Amino acid sequence: MKFDYTNILKENIGDSGITIEEVKKAVELVNSAKERINEKLSSDYFALKLPFLMSLKATEINNTADEIKSKFENFVVVGMGGSSLGNQLLHYTFNGIYYNDTNTPRIYFMDNVDPVSSVSLLKHLDLKKTVFNIITKSGSTAETMENFLFITDKLAKSGLDWKEHVIFTTDPEKGLLRKLSSKLKIKTFDIPQNVGGRYSVLSPVGLLSAAVGGIDVPVLLRGAELMRVNILNKNPMECSATLLPIIQYLMFKTKGININALFTYSDGFSYLGQWYRQLLSESIGKKYDRDGNAVYTGITPTSVRGTSDQHSILQLFLEGPFDKLLIMVAPEEYQADAKINGNAINEPEIAYLKDKNYSELIKAEFTGTCAALKENNRPFIKITIPKIREEEIGKLIYMFEYATILLGEMLKINPIDQPAVELGKAFTYGIMGREGFESKKEKMEKLLSEEDKHIITFNDL
Amino acid sequence: MKFDYTNILKENIGDSGITIEEVKKAVELVNSAKERINEKLSSDYFALKLPFLMSLKATEINNTADEIKSKFENFVVVGMGGSSLGNQLLHYTFNGIYYNDTNTPRIYFMDNVDPVSSVSLLKHLDLKKTVFNIITKSGSTAETMENFLFITDKLAKSGLDWKEHVIFTTDPEKGLLRKLSSKLKIKTFDIPQNVGGRYSVLSPVGLLSAAVGGIDVPVLLRGAELMRVNILNKNPMECSATLLPIIQYLMFKTKGININALFTYSDGFSYLGQWYRQLLSESIGKKYDRDGNAVYTGITPTSVRGTSDQHSILQLFLEGPFDKLLIMVAPEEYQADAKINGNAINEPEIAYLKDKNYSELIKAEFTGTCAALKENNRPFIKITIPKIREEEIGKLIYMFEYATILLGEMLKINPIDQPAVELGKAFTYGIMGREGFESKKEKMEKLLSEEDKHIITFNDL
Repeated sequence: MKFDYTNILKENIGDSGITIEEVKKAVELVNSAKERINEKLSSDYFALKLPFLMSLKATEINNTADEIKSKFENFVVVGMGGSSLGNQLLHYTFNGIYYNDTNTPRIYFMDNVDPVSSVSLLKHLDLKKTVFNIITKSGSTAETMENFLFITDKLAKSGLDWKEHVIFTTDPEKGLLRKLSSKLKIKTFDIPQNVGGRYSVLSPVGLLSAAVGGIDVPVLLRGAELMRVNILNKNPMECSATLLPIIQYLMFKTKGININALFTYSDGFSYLGQWYRQLLSESIGKKYDRDGNAVYTGITPTSVRGTSDQHSILQLFLEGPFDKLLIMVAPEEYQADAKINGNAINEPEIAYLKDKNYSELIKAEFTGTCAALKENNRPFIKITIPKIREEEIGKLIYMFEYATILLGEMLKINPIDQPAVELGKAFTYGIMGREGFESKKEKMEKLLSEEDKHIITFNDL
Repeated sequence: MKFDYTNILKENIGDSGITIEEVKKAVELVNSAKERINEKLSSDYFALKLPFLMSLKATEINNTADEIKSKFENFVVVGMGGSSLGNQLLHYTFNGIYYNDTNTPRIYFMDNVDPVSSVSLLKHLDLKKTVFNIITKSGSTAETMENFLFITDKLAKSGLDWKEHVIFTTDPEKGLLRKLSSKLKIKTFDIPQNVGGRYSVLSPVGLLSAAVGGIDVPVLLRGAELMRVNILNKNPMECSATLLPIIQYLMFKTKGININALFTYSDGFSYLGQWYRQLLSESIGKKYDRDGNAVYTGITPTSVRGTSDQHSILQLFLEGPFDKLLIMVAPEEYQADAKINGNAINEPEIAYLKDKNYSELIKAEFTGTCAALKENNRPFIKITIPKIREEEIGKLIYMFEYATILLGEMLKINPIDQPAVELGKAFTYGIMGREGFESKKEKMEKLLSEEDKHIITFNDL
């Protein structure tokens, strides 16, 4: 893995960059933040221990995956946010976006309560041959519970025993799924205490579906463990997991850069950006700092897919405000390739594409886009990995997780909670008539009562 | 359609809002911008005439679609950026994300040059039963050309005549595809002059695949035409297509809001956000204004999918910096629904979900999230449509297109060009050895030559 930060430096991109002296100076901040992380490795930051801990669980996970593969044709991950995004990252990165067209068990993600999607999915799946992995830490996430009920309804209608078609992944002690698991003896994986959704990809949350999809779980964990050891032993100036948050911090604090774009050159790999979007948003987007001061801190992540989005958002990146840090990520070699002959079309305009490997164009676009960013003095980090392989992706995942926690510590906010999300949930419960949330319903009605004031209605049809 | 802008107003959300007086004052700016648009309806802004013009082409489009449906099992849209995003918007919005699992012709989008995706797709499709719609305005977009060559290679290898498996959509006069079309008599649709990629969804670019997917093209166009007439006849204070850019403009200019999030409550409908991302990025992201001053203008759009992304980015929206305008979009009724009985699980924690319609939860989450935004004084516009129907989506598309052009005119920039993207393309051609781009390669090598200066390499495996 290569982490190239040449083009965030003033010496290379002028005033939109920062100086190497600033970077070096921030190391002090990093060292004290690293200490605070170390102190909380058994509590708040327990997720950082997952690579080693989970290697002890890999056999159980693989055995369950083998059983699933032998018995079922469809594997459906039912979970929201961190109970799905890490699974999607691993699945699409390794298996691409057309996996289900030619492989079984087909892998689906039920990560919404869109009636159109859910009704369609449960209608066309052969439920006899389908298993649902219901994932929720709390054991009661509203969307996941609605899907769980919908699934049990459908299984019952097909004359099937729902208990043979679900696997739970939930808190080891608390919550509704845990209660049902104990009562009904349902196969259940534990999410370790102190591991929140967005830091749970390297727990059974992300690893079971990974194993079902043929991903080598022990090697993935080994990659993450290697990054952990690297962070432990390397000087912060020699370590990508510390340099990344230093750069994010300085760009945010000294340049007002409030947007970070993760720009991945591959369809499947772009799910890394979707996963990172939650990681950075929920971890850093905070009203209060550790001392209770209102700080309204946050960096908005956006996921960008090369080359496609060069034809969408790149114009803005090159000419718009200097409000972005780009993180360009690409493999040096792709898992598949082909030779382009192009014998059918003999026209000079496209001769340059012929008798080459298919992958040459996307590689050239990656380099060409980096050069265009440079030419426009746009700050970017370039991360390249030799190939999409388990150990490389394990390293990347651990790097981003550690970097995000470190950034939170540098900003003096809590990177593992998400206090504001509870409010919307409480309003939702109020509307749905859940017991104990009656006052929330009233409050909400009051909040939205002005809403009839400024409405344009268009009713021609 | 309802357009509710109550919660961008200071009277409702405090200092993060703007006043109704500011909105009214901006109408002057709008009126002169509208005049400039009207003057260019036959040149730069010709795309705004598409609803009526294309209604004359609907029969030809529908007839071709019928022929495709009778002859083929797979329809592949091959195009980049604006030659694909509008197609995806229409397809996924109306047909959902699982259409291909149960319908033919299955519809695919080849909108990248990722070797993993392309090799896999062309391997598993039955090419005898597949037709490719090659879409490029210029007739020579590098990625589209590479895919075109790859497709002709594969068709030849299967013993098929490629000319019977492609339909072109391109410039009426210029470019390589037009040349091939004339020479080889290939079925070809014209993209009208002066209609750029991101404004082309209501041309044959977007409409052919829509018709193949069962979308009622004449009604879609009628919806857009109704919005056109609405803009023409209504006072700017009574029209969503003018109020939207006024709000975007004021939020950007007076509140420094550089991020607009399009938050759609549906899986398929969230492709509206992907389409809008290009529309807003490329149209407004500009270095120079009309007078040649360097202004570095731009608003970063981001696409958000409810309820899923409530578990990802909502924490940041509620507690992070006041740097965002949210555009909340939802249908009042969904195209499908189901009854949740939940007889299998009798636990009080989830009793509130039982004996209700499946769609009630997503509707409650939409309202609950609006209330949470309000409670946190976050500016948001709420757009609701009765249901996903052709006329409503036609209105929305035209509203966003007009609003974006108007915003560009208010900001005094050119909303229909994308000058910076050419540079990256030229570098790519240089790397690929295309004739005439040798100097670009040299320039690029010079630009990136410093890149070995600040690289961390991690090579444990």
